[in-house]
Formats: sequence, C-alpha cells, structure tokens
Amino acid sequence: MTVRRGSRDAILDAVIFILSSRGSDAVTIRNVAAEAGVSVGAVQHNFTTKEALIIGAMTAVNVRFRERLRLLLQNEESAERRLRAFCEEVSCLTETGLTDAVVWTAFAARATTEPGIRAIHAADWGSTEDFLQQLLEAAYPDAGITADDAALVLAVTDGIAVARAAEKTDRMTAERAVRLIDAALAPIAARGRS
Amino acid sequence: MTVRRGSRDAILDAVIFILSSRGSDAVTIRNVAAEAGVSVGAVQHNFTTKEALIIGAMTAVNVRFRERLRLLLQNEESAERRLRAFCEEVSCLTETGLTDAVVWTAFAARATTEPGIRAIHAADWGSTEDFLQQLLEAAYPDAGITADDAALVLAVTDGIAVARAAEKTDRMTAERAVRLIDAALAPIAARGRS
Repeated sequence: MTVRRGSRDAILDAVIFILSSRGSDAVTIRNVAAEAGVSVGAVQHNFTTKEALIIGAMTAVNVRFRERLRLLLQNEESAERRLRAFCEEVSCLTETGLTDAVVWTAFAARATTEPGIRAIHAADWGSTEDFLQQLLEAAYPDAGITADDAALVLAVTDGIAVARAAEKTDRMTAERAVRLIDAALAPIAARGRS
Repeated sequence: MTVRRGSRDAILDAVIFILSSRGSDAVTIRNVAAEAGVSVGAVQHNFTTKEALIIGAMTAVNVRFRERLRLLLQNEESAERRLRAFCEEVSCLTETGLTDAVVWTAFAARATTEPGIRAIHAADWGSTEDFLQQLLEAAYPDAGITADDAALVLAVTDGIAVARAAEKTDRMTAERAVRLIDAALAPIAARGRS
C-alpha cells in the first residue's frame, strides 16, 4: 500500500514536471514512466489514459496550492492582508507560483476541448470566486461587495498569471503585478470608506 | 501559385478548426491533411513541423482578429466607444470571438514551454498593450493614462477570455463580461473628470 501510494505521487510529480518544462504534448505514458523512474505498467496501473494523468496532476497542483494558501492566510494579521496574500498567490508571483501558472495554463487549454477536464476546471474557478468574495467582504465590510467584485478581481489575477506564464518577459513583473492588484482593489476599498 | 496559396489557407483553417474543436494534441500532420482535404505531402511541403503549423495558425488568427477589430473600430463614433469595442473584442464575447479564445488559450499554453511560440506571443501582447494605451488616452485625455492602466484593463479582458474559453459556463456570460469591463474602466474614466 505504501509502495503504491509512493509510486502514484512520483507519477504525478513527473506529470507536473513534464507539463511545466516540456508542455502537454510530452505527457505520454512512456515519458511519465521514464521521468518517475517506474515501469510503463506501473503508470498504466494507476492511470489508464492521458486524461486521467492530467486530471490527477490537476488535482495534485490544486491540493498543493490550497495548502500553500492556507498556511499563508493563517499567518496574515488582518482581513485586508489575507485578501492581498490570496490575490498575489493567484497571480503566481513566486517561482513555485510560476510553475503552477504554467501547469494551470495547460489545464485551461485542455478544458476548452475536453469536457471531463472542463467540469473540474469550472468547479474550481466557481469555488475560487466564492472564496474570494468572502475575503473581499471580510476586508471591506462596508463596501457592499457583490459576486461581480470577486469576478473582476479574479479576472485581473488570472490575466496576470497567464501573462507571467506565457510571456515570461518584463511586461508582467512581480512588481507590476502588485501595482495592478492595488489598482484593482483600490476602487472597491474606497466604496467602503465613503 | 494560386493553388499553393489556396492549399496553405485550407491547411491553416484545418489547424484552427482542430485546435478549437479537439485541442492541441490532435494537431498532427495526418489529421490536418485529412481535415484540409490535401495530401500529407502537401502539409509537409508547407509546414515541416508541428510548431510551424501552430505558428502559422497563430498568425492567421491574429490577422483575422486585427482585421475584425479594424472594421469594428472604424464604425464607432467616439473614442470611448472604440475603447469599449476593443475591450469587448479581446474579451471574446461573440461566437467567433469564443473560437479565437479557445485557439489563443492553446497558444498561451504552448508559449509557456516553446520559446519560438513564446517570442511571437509576447510581442503580440506587448503591442496589444501599447495599442490599448493609445485607445485609453484618446477616450480619457485628462485621466493621466499610464502603461499600467493599459496592463490592468488587458489583464481583465484576458482573464475574461480565458474564463469564457475554458469554463463555458454561466460564471462568465457575455453580459457579466460587459459589466466587468465597465467596472474596470469606471475608475480610470473618473480620474479624467475630477
């Protein structure tokens, strides 16, 4: 049992590494087995199709993201700082975040044409919007926060993440991303003060 | 010469159709030849690699997008309406736009790991940001528009486009997208009025 669990984790780590370094085309049973240091049979035992491998990796990245976020949020001292920490994490400002952004962009691309992946992707973003709305309400209790506020801030941070993953240039540095998050939040915060 | 040009266009149309309906994995020389109704040799004569096929399709989609945008903008009567038309077009609110969004998401995903595609993608978004900055300056001449304003609005519209392409749910309807564009532009417009 421990052996199979370890092998499963190694396989998913291999998928994430291949996705983030060589892209979706390179995710084949053979490449994943070689990268994970297991047999082709071991990969096929755990994941019967490429879609299953991608969904497994998607789930692993999301679990890792949520755990990182949970640790981050519990260390912040105010509701506004928790909101900022969340926005910065979704915008993928760190090196780990940037790897996640590459992997998420691959998932988003597959979600456009694969219904199984789309269902998971859509559910994830729906619940992310809900969670962001709660963070906004806690940070700006008098601002009359709506779901659209959350959707706007999520679109900004998602747009930043895709730019960082796909361009990897000076157009969207971490510093600029922080300024854009500030600019997106300022008008919402101002409503609570008037 | 006309025959070769026609065949090249048919091949690129086939790549775009396959990308938007079956995804990047399905773009193979064999599938493209079958979809375009040409021989495998004809595809290989025009495009020697999968990357060349993808870059060809990317260029074709961008040419089509710019032409659609040019026609749209020349029909709008005010600078603010031209700005809105641009934002709505980048947000992929129409059916044609949604097909483009699917294809763009595939390009963005490939740009994360393929330097040749990334260079084109990054140059495109850099010039799109510059163009958007000019539209913002024309619409709100007294607002002290900066490059960050353009980057913020572009992040919003790009985030909307990815959500529409990858989720295809009620979370990001065309109506909601228009409200979010309004919300992103309102604080910038207000600066010009104070």
